[in-house]
Amino acid sequence: MPSPPQLAFTLDGLRAYLAEIFPQIWRSGGHEIEAIGPMSARVRLRRHDDHLRPGGTISGPAMFALADVALYVAILAQIGRVPLAVTTNLNINFLRKPPPGDIVGEARLLKLGKRLAVGEVGLHSAGETALVAHATGAYSIPDRGSGNEVS
Amino acid sequence: MPSPPQLAFTLDGLRAYLAEIFPQIWRSGGHEIEAIGPMSARVRLRRHDDHLRPGGTISGPAMFALADVALYVAILAQIGRVPLAVTTNLNINFLRKPPPGDIVGEARLLKLGKRLAVGEVGLHSAGETALVAHATGAYSIPDRGSGNEVS
Amino acid sequence: MPSPPQLAFTLDGLRAYLAEIFPQIWRSGGHEIEAIGPMSARVRLRRHDDHLRPGGTISGPAMFALADVALYVAILAQIGRVPLAVTTNLNINFLRKPPPGDIVGEARLLKLGKRLAVGEVGLHSAGETALVAHATGAYSIPDRGSGNEVS
Amino acid sequence: MPSPPQLAFTLDGLRAYLAEIFPQIWRSGGHEIEAIGPMSARVRLRRHDDHLRPGGTISGPAMFALADVALYVAILAQIGRVPLAVTTNLNINFLRKPPPGDIVGEARLLKLGKRLAVGEVGLHSAGETALVAHATGAYSIPDRGSGNEVS
Repeated sequence: MPSPPQLAFTLDGLRAYLAEIFPQIWRSGGHEIEAIGPMSARVRLRRHDDHLRPGGTISGPAMFALADVALYVAILAQIGRVPLAVTTNLNINFLRKPPPGDIVGEARLLKLGKRLAVGEVGLHSAGETALVAHATGAYSIPDRGSGNEVS
Repeated sequence: MPSPPQLAFTLDGLRAYLAEIFPQIWRSGGHEIEAIGPMSARVRLRRHDDHLRPGGTISGPAMFALADVALYVAILAQIGRVPLAVTTNLNINFLRKPPPGDIVGEARLLKLGKRLAVGEVGLHSAGETALVAHATGAYSIPDRGSGNEVS
Repeated sequence: MPSPPQLAFTLDGLRAYLAEIFPQIWRSGGHEIEAIGPMSARVRLRRHDDHLRPGGTISGPAMFALADVALYVAILAQIGRVPLAVTTNLNINFLRKPPPGDIVGEARLLKLGKRLAVGEVGLHSAGETALVAHATGAYSIPDRGSGNEVS
Repeated sequence: MPSPPQLAFTLDGLRAYLAEIFPQIWRSGGHEIEAIGPMSARVRLRRHDDHLRPGGTISGPAMFALADVALYVAILAQIGRVPLAVTTNLNINFLRKPPPGDIVGEARLLKLGKRLAVGEVGLHSAGETALVAHATGAYSIPDRGSGNEVS
């Protein structure tokens, strides 16, 4: 199924690109891009013992990472293979303890400017609707040709 | 050397307590509590390949985790073995790319109420003073005897 | 039209209650509650020269105040005349410069616990859909019978 | 007394510049710049009935405005009369209820890059040391010659 024409990648093309540039994250199989759309992305974090805390709940850093990855994927899906966007701010509210299991992050971009992208992401357990966490993030988009410095 | 009388733990006592309740984090040797003081703590994240990103920089989730851990340690040092504090909000600004190497988080509590603790933490590379990230966090402190639910 | 049965106020009842407890805000006519619903509220900030900045745009503090008010209204609509909720954290992203004119805040609660409420709010110019700002806020809900201290 | 050579304004020069470009804020006498220094500024909010809430406490939006102004002043003191910096994110934690009276905001820049400035600000009642609120803010610094768009 082709991606909508306004996207810079097909789903498979984006998966391949990320596995190439961030092999540590994307080849482990921990995160999986489920869908990309206009200004949006859905990413799943596979249950893994490394992410668990006593009582079986998912760790805060694992939820932070999922929120950041989902927003980043939504940005890349729009802007394509330009120099990397860099997270400048992430604010996360932890709402409920997730049970052990997969967590899904649904990201939506609120702004995609020339230099700054801002988005929000809701995290919920797979198969549930109640949010376990909610985050907003800001990303600096480097000018083409520059490195990916935060300047 | 004894800890100041207002603290609930000695440094060694707190290390032992954390290794007991969070063995996954504290037995790996990745994080090390360097100091605790009144309303403050200093925690070091040892360089580890799992935390690296292309170019050798430290990952955002690893810095998030260090900020959260340093604030949590500062709270525990004050309140002792009471039911667990739970992170409810964490806001992090990424300021500069850290070079590979150890990162130190210096946490300071801004408020320690009966139900709510708030603190800030600056992260810098070991041996440097420029901050690579800065975070503020809010923690819900459960009533004694209740579980560690966020309610 | 009666409000849904799960709400603690009718729209008129909530307006009257707020005019009684916060006359400085609610009798000036600057803010108007347009709607309340389950875990949600819509509040309008009337254009007023006090809120303007050079170039005619709405000031940041005026947008902050609208976000805070809309979340607060959504909480009160659920919990009723209990001791006051207190804002403990508000994080706001400014996305676009609003033109002069009314601004509408659409608030949605993400969590309403016994002690902690968290919500998000999108701000847009009246008649437009693009967000000019987006905020998330956390509120401490005092126990019944206590004052409205942040403790 | 001359300001340190690394600053772009003297204290009086910055006061005059702000009164010229933001007369609504700076001619009312509500905010007063007390000091500027390298990467820092101190600004006082004069007690005014408009900022009060029931019980005599200072309103959240008035504290938000003070935090934003103090950070903005610290940036201008460094970069001078370049096109305006624009607040892109502000995160504020409310810690204690301030008594009626003046509030002082002490701002410190954590980063001043070509495009992005980030700082923190502590707010306390005049004559007290305990913080009543703490904020961090991010500012987009437009390229010279462009407008003050958030892009």
